[in-house]
Amino acid sequence: MQIAIVGLGLMGGSFALGLKNSDHTLVGFDHNEKHCQSALELGLVERIADFDEVKRSDVVILAIPVEAIIKAMDSLHDIAPETTVIDLGSTKEKIIAAIPETLRNNFVAAHPMTGTEKFGPHAALPDLYEDKIVVLCDLKDSGQLHVRRALELFNLLQMKIVKMDAADHDLHAAFISHMPHALSFALARAVLAQQDPKSILTLAAGGFKDMSRLAKSSPDMWTDIFKQNKQNLLHSLKHFQQELDSCTKMVEDDDFESLHSWIAQSNKLHHIL
Amino acid sequence: MQIAIVGLGLMGGSFALGLKNSDHTLVGFDHNEKHCQSALELGLVERIADFDEVKRSDVVILAIPVEAIIKAMDSLHDIAPETTVIDLGSTKEKIIAAIPETLRNNFVAAHPMTGTEKFGPHAALPDLYEDKIVVLCDLKDSGQLHVRRALELFNLLQMKIVKMDAADHDLHAAFISHMPHALSFALARAVLAQQDPKSILTLAAGGFKDMSRLAKSSPDMWTDIFKQNKQNLLHSLKHFQQELDSCTKMVEDDDFESLHSWIAQSNKLHHIL
Repeated sequence: MQIAIVGLGLMGGSFALGLKNSDHTLVGFDHNEKHCQSALELGLVERIADFDEVKRSDVVILAIPVEAIIKAMDSLHDIAPETTVIDLGSTKEKIIAAIPETLRNNFVAAHPMTGTEKFGPHAALPDLYEDKIVVLCDLKDSGQLHVRRALELFNLLQMKIVKMDAADHDLHAAFISHMPHALSFALARAVLAQQDPKSILTLAAGGFKDMSRLAKSSPDMWTDIFKQNKQNLLHSLKHFQQELDSCTKMVEDDDFESLHSWIAQSNKLHHIL
Repeated sequence: MQIAIVGLGLMGGSFALGLKNSDHTLVGFDHNEKHCQSALELGLVERIADFDEVKRSDVVILAIPVEAIIKAMDSLHDIAPETTVIDLGSTKEKIIAAIPETLRNNFVAAHPMTGTEKFGPHAALPDLYEDKIVVLCDLKDSGQLHVRRALELFNLLQMKIVKMDAADHDLHAAFISHMPHALSFALARAVLAQQDPKSILTLAAGGFKDMSRLAKSSPDMWTDIFKQNKQNLLHSLKHFQQELDSCTKMVEDDDFESLHSWIAQSNKLHHIL
């Protein structure tokens, strides 16, 4: 098959690298001319295609920010019934709601639960998807051929497949990914706002580095995600807020016995995780 | 020299392992009988000493929770002038304030900026301290002999030495370590409080694992730290809270242009870190 990767950054570039040893033909497309050049230099794809060729490919992978995925649907409305379109966006409800009727059968909505805080073609990794979970949403509305092809590709990438309603996915993703990004951004900003952040950061060890790693993430990508998953993000932030308020109150009130139980309870996460 | 390690958990056990190839004699002490047995089985120390022998050692390392460090001072008030006492606690002001006048010359207040979320003798690592920062506080009040010995030991462990006022240390440690622990505990609890945490956690990838790792930490140790660094912790939580409130408000108001700048600003942390 010819697979066209739209968006040659971390996700698209890694998708291409992960399939490099398969017998599929990989072509790339990116609005950013520099990304196209880098993708060729790095050997992510065999060549850069124009958008007409992208549309004539067997599979089109949309590895672009979630708002751009919705915009791309206009240009894809006239593709052939046998062309598979797979998006890799971190939100699913708004994207699925935006699929034109004529394209719904072609479309497979996927969210690979993987990534790094880096972005662009140079961030691409051959094993980014290996052993990771990919969530496929609302598969009942995708055509059989297209589901079969999606499963084939994610299997080739050695991913673990989880099927889920888009609504459940978006709620879970808010708790597991989107809200934690908000915390990491806020943590980084709180330190930067101090009089002498350098002195504070001199003391940074593994814990702080882990907690602030997500604060390296792309503003373009994450503004879009927060916009599209607004209600679930606000809901998960409210739950986090209640917990942090409890903690603050126990410390203020010198209620260290309750604080001990509160911390001990949080340890239980790792019985599940 | 004979070095007595009081507290044979992660920090004390790793301190002993890090000095294993030196010509110092390492003895251990722990109220927990099982920890003593494990420390011997793991070869962390040569033997277990009683507290009288601990007090007659050349150096006493206090690798116990910060409230226990303060309690231990009573039992140490009558040690010889040439015995060095070094504490490894994560808070420094309250500990230094609690040192009896007669012990002040002996005492070197240290905070090694390292650790893992694990605890107990089995968590000990030979290279836990290597290349990490150790903050030494208010050294002007420690005797020359004792400062020299502390520097010798931290150099043997290949640590990078930073000298700082206890007040600055405690403020910085709140931002870089104590407040991030509170966030991680609250995050873990927010997910656990949901109807089906297992379904949510199925989707956990590297980002969530990083953000929730600190929520494995010991309730005993962290209740003490939050108690001793109460004011700085509340201060840093307030700063974090302001940032998170801004984020929440921008999302509520659909002000995604401002949100983009807010996220982009947080990226700058990594120009320093």
